[in-house]
Amino acid sequence: MQVEVVAIGTELLLGQIVDTNSSWIGQELAAAGLNSHYQTKVGDNPDRIRAVLRQAIERSDAVICCGGLGPTQDDITRELIAELMGPDMSGVEMEMDETIAARIRDMFESRGRVMPENNLRQAMIPVGGSAIPQQPGTAPGLVCPVGTSGEKVIFAVPGVPYEMKEMVIGTVIPHLREMAGDTGVIKSRVLRTWGQSESGLSEMLAERIEQLDAAGNPTLAFLASGVEGLKVRITAKAEDEAAVEAMLDTEQAVLEPIIGHVIFGQDDENMEAVVIRLLTERGLTVAVAESLTGGYVAGRLCAVPGASKAFQGGVVAYQNEVKYKLLGVPEGPVISEPAAVAMAEGVAQAMGADIGLATTGVAGPDESEGKPVGTVCLAVSSADGAVATTVRLPGDRERIRQFSAITLLDLLRRLLLETA
Amino acid sequence: MQVEVVAIGTELLLGQIVDTNSSWIGQELAAAGLNSHYQTKVGDNPDRIRAVLRQAIERSDAVICCGGLGPTQDDITRELIAELMGPDMSGVEMEMDETIAARIRDMFESRGRVMPENNLRQAMIPVGGSAIPQQPGTAPGLVCPVGTSGEKVIFAVPGVPYEMKEMVIGTVIPHLREMAGDTGVIKSRVLRTWGQSESGLSEMLAERIEQLDAAGNPTLAFLASGVEGLKVRITAKAEDEAAVEAMLDTEQAVLEPIIGHVIFGQDDENMEAVVIRLLTERGLTVAVAESLTGGYVAGRLCAVPGASKAFQGGVVAYQNEVKYKLLGVPEGPVISEPAAVAMAEGVAQAMGADIGLATTGVAGPDESEGKPVGTVCLAVSSADGAVATTVRLPGDRERIRQFSAITLLDLLRRLLLETA
Repeated sequence: MQVEVVAIGTELLLGQIVDTNSSWIGQELAAAGLNSHYQTKVGDNPDRIRAVLRQAIERSDAVICCGGLGPTQDDITRELIAELMGPDMSGVEMEMDETIAARIRDMFESRGRVMPENNLRQAMIPVGGSAIPQQPGTAPGLVCPVGTSGEKVIFAVPGVPYEMKEMVIGTVIPHLREMAGDTGVIKSRVLRTWGQSESGLSEMLAERIEQLDAAGNPTLAFLASGVEGLKVRITAKAEDEAAVEAMLDTEQAVLEPIIGHVIFGQDDENMEAVVIRLLTERGLTVAVAESLTGGYVAGRLCAVPGASKAFQGGVVAYQNEVKYKLLGVPEGPVISEPAAVAMAEGVAQAMGADIGLATTGVAGPDESEGKPVGTVCLAVSSADGAVATTVRLPGDRERIRQFSAITLLDLLRRLLLETA
Repeated sequence: MQVEVVAIGTELLLGQIVDTNSSWIGQELAAAGLNSHYQTKVGDNPDRIRAVLRQAIERSDAVICCGGLGPTQDDITRELIAELMGPDMSGVEMEMDETIAARIRDMFESRGRVMPENNLRQAMIPVGGSAIPQQPGTAPGLVCPVGTSGEKVIFAVPGVPYEMKEMVIGTVIPHLREMAGDTGVIKSRVLRTWGQSESGLSEMLAERIEQLDAAGNPTLAFLASGVEGLKVRITAKAEDEAAVEAMLDTEQAVLEPIIGHVIFGQDDENMEAVVIRLLTERGLTVAVAESLTGGYVAGRLCAVPGASKAFQGGVVAYQNEVKYKLLGVPEGPVISEPAAVAMAEGVAQAMGADIGLATTGVAGPDESEGKPVGTVCLAVSSADGAVATTVRLPGDRERIRQFSAITLLDLLRRLLLETA
């Protein structure tokens, strides 16, 4: 079962938009155990779209065609797909789908707007094709059987990411899995890690990856996610929901003794969400004093829905006088563990929080207080006392600031787990 | 002159990495006036890479092949390109390039590491091809003439973005322009805007775009950049540096009366850099009190190198008690313009800054104080008094917070310009 992705749009070739749709579809296909050997980007040109679509459906079993479904003149994808349908790819006619037409009219009316007549072009679909039931926007997605007995299929989905995703999850992937005779349940679980490089994790898991590669199910994949850490995705296939969950549990139990010390969360739970959850479970509040990170730690904590249960606020003490006056840091050098501890204690007191956090260090471009760029002191203070650490982070100013923020949150997470 | 991009790597098809390289190359090709009709992603499979490269070089004049140059077994790109070289694409041998070999050995030695012998694979290049002079990493880039008289060319560049970029700018684009007989100078200038949608800007500039399309030089392109605003890129071609700068100046002078009110900066200068520059020029300092943005405004200001000249610090007043106690906001509802003004004045005083900024509002998911999600009050206070405004922002929690931050910075920018 071979599936190709064709992304349509001159704006993609010009680099005005990065084609994240194809990457996302690639992830979903891989997670569903479907092979994908090619992804092509082509501009809004009928001849070239025609050539790319024909080649794709000839060498693969299915094509997901993304973009080019809007109401404008350029959007000729539907007609070009119709040309490839019918016996011996001899082409089929287009016909108005009245259900889609009514839905498009309704969408305009419900917003109190008059529908430009050319929007009805979107309701024209190839004879033999059908509309994808999910329709979050005005552009309908299409399922178009190709080949004499309809043994192949071209899907057309809009380029708007949230519309595309709803259709791919709701219709395209289930349809492809049915074509592949794949009736089991496939699920993934993501173990989120911080503190190890991809090559480090690969080395730690080398033996296990070899075993899994030999067996074929479940599978492991690494997804590098920058300041969000490195994701380890387990994907399993089984005959029902319970069996697939059991497989994921079993595999997780195998991995945890090997990499458990760097796993901080699961699936969509990022570092700040874990921290807010642990604080809330313990009934603790936190405040943060930031020098080089300048608000990044506070910003990430606030981004968690429900942050108000645990997050009091923060002080961005960029200038030293702010550290001295507002936070009570003793006057003198401020890139040190004692200064970080004083900042953490000062902000906890000022904000009436149980726990204080602090960052101080050298983001660059120049060194400071004789300390090299990348030197960062982090502190966590609480009623139990204070913990401080100094790290040397690589990279440029922005990377040093971002990595300082997540490293501090990870330090707090580890301390909260120890004092559970 | 047709140029194609082929990106090689199974990790791209699996969506483990988003192929931003092709998008960036697409931008550079467009800016250099070179056409690009296709971009293809293919996995690490010799047969499929071979087929994709052959098709690409047959239908286009040049191919930029990105990735697949590393020292591992999978990296067979160089050999596959060699197969397409020589008379009638009959293939050429590989030979060791001693200069590259010596450079790779030196790189390992200078880092005090022993070179694994398979790294020398990287020094094998097709007979008739040459190495790209820029070599920021160990992987050499290649220029490989194809066709009986070498009338076509395949470039091979590494997948590591900074290595790829250096080679594309330094060698690939100049080589392609020479092939195209294009001896003039091409330059772009980016006008950065905030406050208008892409369709709004297109409408305002419709007449001018039509004129430019008819004339062909200079050209305009829009680059949507999310919370960084919308970039309007002018690209001009002329016979020398002075002439091209004059064309850019002329075009900018035409655009400014039409969209000048939404232009905040130029080229790489983002909103926070503009604000820091204006403050520094005026010898003013700023402090910021943030509720819903939770540190984003401070974080963006701190991200500017040289921020310390103008940025004092900030208070993240997420909980109301922090607003009351630390910032002197009168007890009561806090999602209002008077509360925003009190926060701005409070933080300016606490931090000893000339100007205070403040955000307070409803990021969601739930409404607050009877105000709907997306309601945001922004304030700027100074010795001249205070200005406050209320906006209704669309989108989810994260988007509302991000857009609040840049909207506030834009408000400050406008006020600084007025009081120049």
